[in-house]
Amino acid sequence: MNPKQEVVNHILAHRTESPMTEADAFAPANIALCKYWGKRDTELNLPVTSSLSLSLGSLGSQCHLSFCEERHQVVLNDEPLDPNSPFVVRLSQYLDLFRRDTDRYYRVETLNTIPTAAGFASSASGFASTVLALDKLHGWCLSEIELSILARLGSGSACRSLWQGFVEWHAGETETGMDCFAQPITTAWPELRIGLLVLEAGKKPIGSREAMQRTVETSPLYASWPHKVAADIQIIRKAIEENNFEALGAAAESNALTMHATMMGATPAVVYWLPESVETMHRVWKLRREGLPLYFTMDAGPNVKLLFLDKDRQHVEEHFPDLLVAQ
Amino acid sequence: MNPKQEVVNHILAHRTESPMTEADAFAPANIALCKYWGKRDTELNLPVTSSLSLSLGSLGSQCHLSFCEERHQVVLNDEPLDPNSPFVVRLSQYLDLFRRDTDRYYRVETLNTIPTAAGFASSASGFASTVLALDKLHGWCLSEIELSILARLGSGSACRSLWQGFVEWHAGETETGMDCFAQPITTAWPELRIGLLVLEAGKKPIGSREAMQRTVETSPLYASWPHKVAADIQIIRKAIEENNFEALGAAAESNALTMHATMMGATPAVVYWLPESVETMHRVWKLRREGLPLYFTMDAGPNVKLLFLDKDRQHVEEHFPDLLVAQ
Repeated sequence: MNPKQEVVNHILAHRTESPMTEADAFAPANIALCKYWGKRDTELNLPVTSSLSLSLGSLGSQCHLSFCEERHQVVLNDEPLDPNSPFVVRLSQYLDLFRRDTDRYYRVETLNTIPTAAGFASSASGFASTVLALDKLHGWCLSEIELSILARLGSGSACRSLWQGFVEWHAGETETGMDCFAQPITTAWPELRIGLLVLEAGKKPIGSREAMQRTVETSPLYASWPHKVAADIQIIRKAIEENNFEALGAAAESNALTMHATMMGATPAVVYWLPESVETMHRVWKLRREGLPLYFTMDAGPNVKLLFLDKDRQHVEEHFPDLLVAQ
Repeated sequence: MNPKQEVVNHILAHRTESPMTEADAFAPANIALCKYWGKRDTELNLPVTSSLSLSLGSLGSQCHLSFCEERHQVVLNDEPLDPNSPFVVRLSQYLDLFRRDTDRYYRVETLNTIPTAAGFASSASGFASTVLALDKLHGWCLSEIELSILARLGSGSACRSLWQGFVEWHAGETETGMDCFAQPITTAWPELRIGLLVLEAGKKPIGSREAMQRTVETSPLYASWPHKVAADIQIIRKAIEENNFEALGAAAESNALTMHATMMGATPAVVYWLPESVETMHRVWKLRREGLPLYFTMDAGPNVKLLFLDKDRQHVEEHFPDLLVAQ
């Protein structure tokens, strides 16, 4: 039996079913302030390090789940997807993990409120909302930890997309990954804002899974990454506790730059940055030198995400009129 | 006595003087294919790792040296420089190392044939040509190794600027640095070309000495750099021996990207890249995917240097009309 199936069976072993005919669930997208970069187990999506994210409020995925026959059906933003497309194949394999009645398939209708596949984590909110909907549809009443583990099997960072606010994903140590799940951080910080800049809505030259794997396998700089994360995650936890924006922003920005740096050391090098990405970074640094408390983070792609406080929102939006601010 | 003076005194200890009234010397600039990045001794410019460079033919510094009175005089590209400018202060301290007759000062007239202070190594050729001129002016008849050591005291990479062609700078191990000097590699490769693109002739936001020191002291990625150099310098040596252009280009490009990556991990981050730098990199990669054997390297600045073979020169110049090709 494949290791994912073992995990699913273990979690669902003593659950009774009280299925509904359909279920709805929403999950927010999330942006890591301390990044998830590198797997210790590529099959179970077990990460080398812990990570810490901020969820994006109403930006995410709304999933409507029901049963159907013959094969899984996937509808994304009102468009039925080709059953042979790589995404549907991947999602179908994931859904197969939960099928006990072999005649019954799932129909997944997802609405993304965040631009898809442009470096914004729509696969995280997609898998997270699917897991939440599966739990409701079957009436399993799983714990948050169990839901997080199941979401991770779909996409690593999906395990952080079950909550709003700050979320920490614990790397864990076991082979089965039963100690590898995310949990919300209860500290609130209502003034903190994150804004998305879509510099490049096109497809990335290399997917983030492949970039991550290539970095782990070929970049001599990757050896330092776990130490960097260990230091940054402590700083970020403390900054959240104290609502210390400068500390949070500086650590998140440094963490993102260092993640991109590890990719540049890979063979062949992975450089997601576009001229516009670098132009935006320099603009952020200039505004910061001029006194505006503004920081950025970037995921495995060319887009830049801005971190700022609500009091500076108007000022930031003047400089970045296309900014999409998460609520 | 300061450690630089000890080295100079040691080298000049048993030299007789037969001074001329003036002397001329030329030294080429050089571009490292395997970079010098990080010092184990900041006073003596002793590097953490060895490095390997290619000299730029007629692009470099022509030095005319004579004696004068009262204070050192520095003329750069026919302009007398302010005696209190940081560069003249630094050069004067260097020249003081060689003054035995305390009433006699030096007049240094330098002509740079390479754009100054725009990321092109004019300080390397400047100090190298000065050392060569000092040797002639005083009639010391120093060995190449001794000249290389003296040039290093002025600027680390100056020790590689005494020869044309490929030059390897041996890191050495001793505290005094008497085993830390450069030597030419005798293999010729007449078809190899290096071209300079001046993307930004302005002043850099942070000098390379400071960027180097900050990286060594604060970047967690720097720990991997010596291993990277150890691997790359072997590949590059072998590629030179075999005139294997793809191997040379790939290693040089990866080495430069990794050096820049180590800076991005520093606190605060050092990002020399401008939008134009990244645009140029992507252009090089696109041309390479289309079949053109073209690679780049970058030093501690935003400018990009292209590596190609003479047979492709016309094709390269069509895509980069402003390219300054070293002869």
